[in-house]
Amino acid sequence: MTRIVHVNGDELAEDQAKVSVFDRGFLMADGVYEVTSVLGGKLVDFPGHLARLGRSLGALKIANPHTDEEWLAIHRRMVESNGIDEGLVYLQVTRGNPGDRDFAWVEGVAPTVVLFTQSKPGLADSPQARDGIRVIMLPDLRWRRRDIKTVQLLAPSLAKMEAKAQGADDAWLIEEGVITEGTSNNAWIVKDGRIVTRGLSTDILHGITRAAVMRLAAEAQMTVEERGFTPEEARAADEAFVTSASAFVMPVVEIDGARLGDGRPGPVARRLREIYLEDARASAL
Amino acid sequence: MTRIVHVNGDELAEDQAKVSVFDRGFLMADGVYEVTSVLGGKLVDFPGHLARLGRSLGALKIANPHTDEEWLAIHRRMVESNGIDEGLVYLQVTRGNPGDRDFAWVEGVAPTVVLFTQSKPGLADSPQARDGIRVIMLPDLRWRRRDIKTVQLLAPSLAKMEAKAQGADDAWLIEEGVITEGTSNNAWIVKDGRIVTRGLSTDILHGITRAAVMRLAAEAQMTVEERGFTPEEARAADEAFVTSASAFVMPVVEIDGARLGDGRPGPVARRLREIYLEDARASAL
Repeated sequence: MTRIVHVNGDELAEDQAKVSVFDRGFLMADGVYEVTSVLGGKLVDFPGHLARLGRSLGALKIANPHTDEEWLAIHRRMVESNGIDEGLVYLQVTRGNPGDRDFAWVEGVAPTVVLFTQSKPGLADSPQARDGIRVIMLPDLRWRRRDIKTVQLLAPSLAKMEAKAQGADDAWLIEEGVITEGTSNNAWIVKDGRIVTRGLSTDILHGITRAAVMRLAAEAQMTVEERGFTPEEARAADEAFVTSASAFVMPVVEIDGARLGDGRPGPVARRLREIYLEDARASAL
Repeated sequence: MTRIVHVNGDELAEDQAKVSVFDRGFLMADGVYEVTSVLGGKLVDFPGHLARLGRSLGALKIANPHTDEEWLAIHRRMVESNGIDEGLVYLQVTRGNPGDRDFAWVEGVAPTVVLFTQSKPGLADSPQARDGIRVIMLPDLRWRRRDIKTVQLLAPSLAKMEAKAQGADDAWLIEEGVITEGTSNNAWIVKDGRIVTRGLSTDILHGITRAAVMRLAAEAQMTVEERGFTPEEARAADEAFVTSASAFVMPVVEIDGARLGDGRPGPVARRLREIYLEDARASAL
């Protein structure tokens, strides 16, 4: 079955979904994206993704091509056209095609809008979530504005490949001796009942799932410290996990080859995944 | 007149030149590029650009889709098809279209190849080169592997726009108190007859024009120091210039609003531009 892909208002078969080679998304990575999970055919944490999309576009001075209502309608149409029950909706907005290449951009060019879906049956009940994942540590090579969700994804892509080459599932990125985050997720550890994750700044992505988990942990009377933590702290943690829109709360059971606890997902990660998924389903649009 | 654009072996009218939205160049900035100047219908410093293309592709583990002879033939065909006397040939190679989006890439996908031209009559005798350009200083926000010529160009693009907003022509980028390079060029100053430019590392692009100017300066008995220099040194310099494939040797006459010398292009920059252009024309293919 071929997917239906949205390109600037058109719904196209995926092999017909193309953009100009002069699009600044292709020539200069001049674009931003969001990935929204779908559970039971509904969009998870959607207002959060729209708000961050607006912030990313604003930081790059790209006009937001749609209202929130239009974005919701477009997303829902993608879910419906592609029959997604569990999966993802990927959205990318670029500065568009000015007709030629120049480091300086020109005003008044219509942004390029692309959406496609990924069907992932079993997303909420994956074997990875039951078994946990293994991470290694790698240097953080990314640019300095990681709070803007741009398509400049070479560094995390290379890190992901290096992790796999070393037999792990993912990498946590280190800068100045402290973990920033994972390649495509926020990183968390638990020690003596305290949950630790890095505070918000331009150094990390402001995860939508991170924010939801912060809120839910507080509601569940759990203590969360927002601060940087070191690889040594991570390896000595009782448990660890990552959060992202597509992985929700994903337990980490091994760091740099060292098992955490008994090598099984810990109780805090399991509990947070459970209450996150419950909340996500209840608030999905 | 519409340009002829090369896309994976096809020569297309520019409005037909497209790539899949699933191309990793569009989704993840997973691609590299080169820009070769054309003078008198011939390719300037071409072996240097091909060698760097090979290094960039190698660093990202993307297979080089063509031999040097094939690249030369494709470039020459682009120059001829588009009737370029003075101008540029832009080349981009991406990891291609694996059919879906994932941070991890799959082996065996054919790279995407795109080439297009920009006709720039008067490129070698531009008013900017006669008058010189003005630069300001901005923080270097780029990723840590600037030696790989990737299409992750948002930071330099934003810096270029900020420079223009402040009434300048370009920006020099500062990191840890020292200038790395310009947004799309290497930065040089001249003080008391000594020419200074930053040494090669992963912190800067290894400019093809930079290498040629180093060689020509040595042949002309000029002294070049390869080391970092500070904004204070730059503002106190006798003269300054930038080098790039499209600007050749471009005098800088003002830094952060302060005129260098009499505010006119200096003798070292003018001399180096002259001997560079002479050498470039003589060795063009």
